[in-house]
Amino acid sequence: MRIGILTSGGDCPGLNAVIRGAVLKGDRIHGHEFLGIKDGWRGLVEDDVAPLPRHQIRGLSKQGGTILGTSRVGPYGEGNGGAQRVRETMQRRGMDALIAIGGEGTLTVARMLHDEGIDVVGVPKTIDNDLGATDYTFGFDTAVHVATEAIDRLRTTGDSHHRCMVLEVMGRHAGWIALHAGIAGGAHAVLIPEVAVGYDQVAQWVRATADRGRAPMVVVAEGFMPDGELVSGGQVDGMGRPRLGGVGEQVAREIEERTGIESRAMALGHMQRGGSPTAYDRVLATRFGTAALDAVHDRAFGQMVALAGTEIVRVPLAEATTALKSVPRERWDEAAILFG
Amino acid sequence: MRIGILTSGGDCPGLNAVIRGAVLKGDRIHGHEFLGIKDGWRGLVEDDVAPLPRHQIRGLSKQGGTILGTSRVGPYGEGNGGAQRVRETMQRRGMDALIAIGGEGTLTVARMLHDEGIDVVGVPKTIDNDLGATDYTFGFDTAVHVATEAIDRLRTTGDSHHRCMVLEVMGRHAGWIALHAGIAGGAHAVLIPEVAVGYDQVAQWVRATADRGRAPMVVVAEGFMPDGELVSGGQVDGMGRPRLGGVGEQVAREIEERTGIESRAMALGHMQRGGSPTAYDRVLATRFGTAALDAVHDRAFGQMVALAGTEIVRVPLAEATTALKSVPRERWDEAAILFG
Amino acid sequence: MRIGILTSGGDCPGLNAVIRGAVLKGDRIHGHEFLGIKDGWRGLVEDDVAPLPRHQIRGLSKQGGTILGTSRVGPYGEGNGGAQRVRETMQRRGMDALIAIGGEGTLTVARMLHDEGIDVVGVPKTIDNDLGATDYTFGFDTAVHVATEAIDRLRTTGDSHHRCMVLEVMGRHAGWIALHAGIAGGAHAVLIPEVAVGYDQVAQWVRATADRGRAPMVVVAEGFMPDGELVSGGQVDGMGRPRLGGVGEQVAREIEERTGIESRAMALGHMQRGGSPTAYDRVLATRFGTAALDAVHDRAFGQMVALAGTEIVRVPLAEATTALKSVPRERWDEAAILFG
Amino acid sequence: MRIGILTSGGDCPGLNAVIRGAVLKGDRIHGHEFLGIKDGWRGLVEDDVAPLPRHQIRGLSKQGGTILGTSRVGPYGEGNGGAQRVRETMQRRGMDALIAIGGEGTLTVARMLHDEGIDVVGVPKTIDNDLGATDYTFGFDTAVHVATEAIDRLRTTGDSHHRCMVLEVMGRHAGWIALHAGIAGGAHAVLIPEVAVGYDQVAQWVRATADRGRAPMVVVAEGFMPDGELVSGGQVDGMGRPRLGGVGEQVAREIEERTGIESRAMALGHMQRGGSPTAYDRVLATRFGTAALDAVHDRAFGQMVALAGTEIVRVPLAEATTALKSVPRERWDEAAILFG
Repeated sequence: MRIGILTSGGDCPGLNAVIRGAVLKGDRIHGHEFLGIKDGWRGLVEDDVAPLPRHQIRGLSKQGGTILGTSRVGPYGEGNGGAQRVRETMQRRGMDALIAIGGEGTLTVARMLHDEGIDVVGVPKTIDNDLGATDYTFGFDTAVHVATEAIDRLRTTGDSHHRCMVLEVMGRHAGWIALHAGIAGGAHAVLIPEVAVGYDQVAQWVRATADRGRAPMVVVAEGFMPDGELVSGGQVDGMGRPRLGGVGEQVAREIEERTGIESRAMALGHMQRGGSPTAYDRVLATRFGTAALDAVHDRAFGQMVALAGTEIVRVPLAEATTALKSVPRERWDEAAILFG
Repeated sequence: MRIGILTSGGDCPGLNAVIRGAVLKGDRIHGHEFLGIKDGWRGLVEDDVAPLPRHQIRGLSKQGGTILGTSRVGPYGEGNGGAQRVRETMQRRGMDALIAIGGEGTLTVARMLHDEGIDVVGVPKTIDNDLGATDYTFGFDTAVHVATEAIDRLRTTGDSHHRCMVLEVMGRHAGWIALHAGIAGGAHAVLIPEVAVGYDQVAQWVRATADRGRAPMVVVAEGFMPDGELVSGGQVDGMGRPRLGGVGEQVAREIEERTGIESRAMALGHMQRGGSPTAYDRVLATRFGTAALDAVHDRAFGQMVALAGTEIVRVPLAEATTALKSVPRERWDEAAILFG
Repeated sequence: MRIGILTSGGDCPGLNAVIRGAVLKGDRIHGHEFLGIKDGWRGLVEDDVAPLPRHQIRGLSKQGGTILGTSRVGPYGEGNGGAQRVRETMQRRGMDALIAIGGEGTLTVARMLHDEGIDVVGVPKTIDNDLGATDYTFGFDTAVHVATEAIDRLRTTGDSHHRCMVLEVMGRHAGWIALHAGIAGGAHAVLIPEVAVGYDQVAQWVRATADRGRAPMVVVAEGFMPDGELVSGGQVDGMGRPRLGGVGEQVAREIEERTGIESRAMALGHMQRGGSPTAYDRVLATRFGTAALDAVHDRAFGQMVALAGTEIVRVPLAEATTALKSVPRERWDEAAILFG
Repeated sequence: MRIGILTSGGDCPGLNAVIRGAVLKGDRIHGHEFLGIKDGWRGLVEDDVAPLPRHQIRGLSKQGGTILGTSRVGPYGEGNGGAQRVRETMQRRGMDALIAIGGEGTLTVARMLHDEGIDVVGVPKTIDNDLGATDYTFGFDTAVHVATEAIDRLRTTGDSHHRCMVLEVMGRHAGWIALHAGIAGGAHAVLIPEVAVGYDQVAQWVRATADRGRAPMVVVAEGFMPDGELVSGGQVDGMGRPRLGGVGEQVAREIEERTGIESRAMALGHMQRGGSPTAYDRVLATRFGTAALDAVHDRAFGQMVALAGTEIVRVPLAEATTALKSVPRERWDEAAILFG
């Protein structure tokens, strides 16, 4: 078989390890051939495709990012030709099947293409860990690792200056990174999109911490929406969103206003998705890669690979893209006993 | 309630996070009191016990080792008084229940004590990840992380000198650390106790790697037993075990003899079990700690906490100590396609 | 002797190692006693002082921040009592001499106090490496290490998305962190306060890099002032300073406007000054600490310790505070051949 | 000009950054051409040489090892043809000059070749920091960093088990790595080749540490020779050298015999010289590379680049190879006040 591989959406540590796993398994066990599709779906839309021989995937397991490039272009975008264009490129290149590595958007596109007869297997990718059909995805552990290191560093500054430090991490719809990094780093408050906490409650945690002689550490996911009033009014727009800076800045201002404790915010931003993956993510991504190849080989199209406990399984793409995996209330409650 | 906590057996990153999780939850939610038992069962045998107030567990989630100390002393050892002595110490100290954190040996003792009427809850601990009743335990991810970093470092030396590098990691009965670190680090051969590979096969992988212009990297678990003949004869005893150095040295010698490729071994040793835990292990250990407290609170004695998928569950201690969790053949086969 | 120690100004990795070095040497060799002064000069102004016995400095060499706390309060501030208040506190506490650890401001105060008869020895501290009288100070190497790690991480995101990444690092008056991290991380442009570069030149470097198929990486010190016109006009105030976000955001906007290459900025902020010091900084800080104690013991007051080559020397405080150590033009030129 | 570059002797983090610095400067500023010589002097002896275009040095500053390979072959070895063979290869390849990157042996060969008329510039390389003519060399900081991390990890195991941990690091003739890592890691004893300490003294430090309730940490350089008697007699040969294992094992045995404190040794081995260089080493190596190119361009043959304070200078090769830079007694005394 001749198999095309693409990575789409935001970059994520482990993408290269998936590619390496699939190519090694295909090349060695079945003698399959591989084509690298450039910048996600764009490469299929614009026929930007190149052979992906084995020597190109050498040493890739530890390398962050994706050697194939990525973009947010999709085949169903205006003028991009839809399934028909994808099919034409595949035929022109003699491509028998696709492995599409990406997040919810990418997997939705993969499902739609499969419904139109394209032979595609999905590999889930999300820094945010918010895909319902898999226990974890690669990249999440690396993001939590980077955020935890940041907490460890910021804490000493907070302690020395008797300040409250606020770390803003990724998580627009789900607070997994904030939750895990907050637990790992011993945060005194964790604010996530799933749980509407008021700033009075946050201020209470911060004060309780300071009263014990410690520097409060607050972790906030970018998608957090506070419950109740803001006191640092002019700084937010009509939707309650911060006008300047991100939500981390808002949290710091609200804490400072309410407690009088000097507060500083830092947004971790792109550092969470770059760089060498953790060992955990390298293993998971490699297993996803070899399992995706197996799925292609078994012609299990329309499916994606997923982690269930310690096993790699297959689930229908349709299932993968229906439900967002939010932080369940009991997981937050379990963590909240550590706050304050 | 007044609850005693002990850590027993080899140290492991995350022990302190378990202690912190249990004490924080007990102190804040239920108003329980805690006693720290020194050096595992020894503290109960010799009545070496001290209050464990909340301020002592401050900042512990990131700290390696155990603030309670550990030892390999057991209550059923010669002259140690068995369950009776444990009961006496508990009564003298007004201890209502125990949380025992340890590996197979510790959990077996906990089960025996429970059979004799002691109220005890277990928390599984094993660097080697070889306990059957839980998906993972804390400490394993840190060990894999340290071993993977070692591979990343050793690889550059191998590449520069055109040498084969051999890394010996922990795993007397199960090869999990070798398997995961080997996958994460892109090893060209992984040798584990569960799979009897001959050195001719290893030499073949090494030669294939060198023929592609790369420096071979071999990871071997300390419990690996080779299949077939050794050629570096005088160096091994009648059981086929290496006389000098560990199995890593043996592997390096056998490779060098068979391939003529200069080979060097390194044993990672204690570095795998020391130091700050990874974020993954901090989260898992904290969850184990709070869940163990819940189990005590619910009087679910004779049970231990365990990870099942993403959930923390309870399993009977009896179940936890019956079966060693070996690397299944299919996991090794899955990895072996990456070798050579 | 009874010696007071204080840390003043922004926190910095290595402060605790200085304290440890001084106390260990004083306690063991000379039998001196130590007092910890809380939050820098504030502790002397408000008589907030406590014994600093040896066991409190246990394990401090690897710990970031300062166990003594710090602040920006000075004895010459309004109503703070000047040298007289300092002298009174010292007499009340039986303090014979001071070790003052801090940056330019702290050392200037130390010099003024010495001129008024206070027995004080200085230890230079600056993340920014901008003190003229010493080759390096502790904290700088850690800051460069953190910034270099950030570059390594951001680079993979840039490569995957074909973006230009801009990292803003500390350095209001001197560009040392940007220069060293830029060299270490292989940046394609480094912008520092000492060298007025125009954005047309920056855009040229960025374009040249992108034309070779690489993702441009730009490092900018917070004190950088561009030469010439801005094209992203409304975003800056009358002084040419960015209105929203820091200078990193400005750089990203100007690059994007001129090259059409998508550009993203990240400000590293407090992460540069927090956390465990590098081995280099731990060694330098420990040596500064023991040397400061020697200076006190030799009654070399009015002096500070400094690094000259590989030796620790003493220089008059007056000398230490006269000249800012800027990046010399030839160091920037040396680096600039790597740009583009 | 057409310039050949070689790396010789043991590998060392930073070699690739030197290569990158030299090639970038030569290519961009002067339009020089480069040839990569394979495996050190072997490439000249056997005419194993290939063009080294700029794109091959892409991203090299962070990569450990050497892309050119290295060996211990020398031109003056039996049958290797001496300067005449080197000259022939250079002429055949149109090579005008050499940049030789290596340690004492390599630089001695470079000096001898220069005496015979070969145009060569040296770049000093030694993990051990034992070259007299330069303040520091690249690779040393990385080795100290790795050793310090090992101490940080081993310490928690020692603390948990109340053991004495012994770390054996590189340093056959000079104890710099042991000294700096020992200071950075807060070791309770540091044993180096330059200072003959008896095991009774070591045991006293270890006991004093244990008496304070801490786990003793001992760092020993591989070249350490103890003063006085050994008590673990049969384990050493007639020269007083350990029969099995390295000197670290000997130290652990002698401590255990004398103090009764359980002691464990670990040899760090190749991990000290592999892997990604620290930011410090990347900067120093890059500066050495560009300065070496300048020296070639200025026809300053027979010289090597060196660090003096913060400046890169040139020193005659003859000077570079005369004196070993031992740890001065006063540096050891300065550290020794931290022991016990």
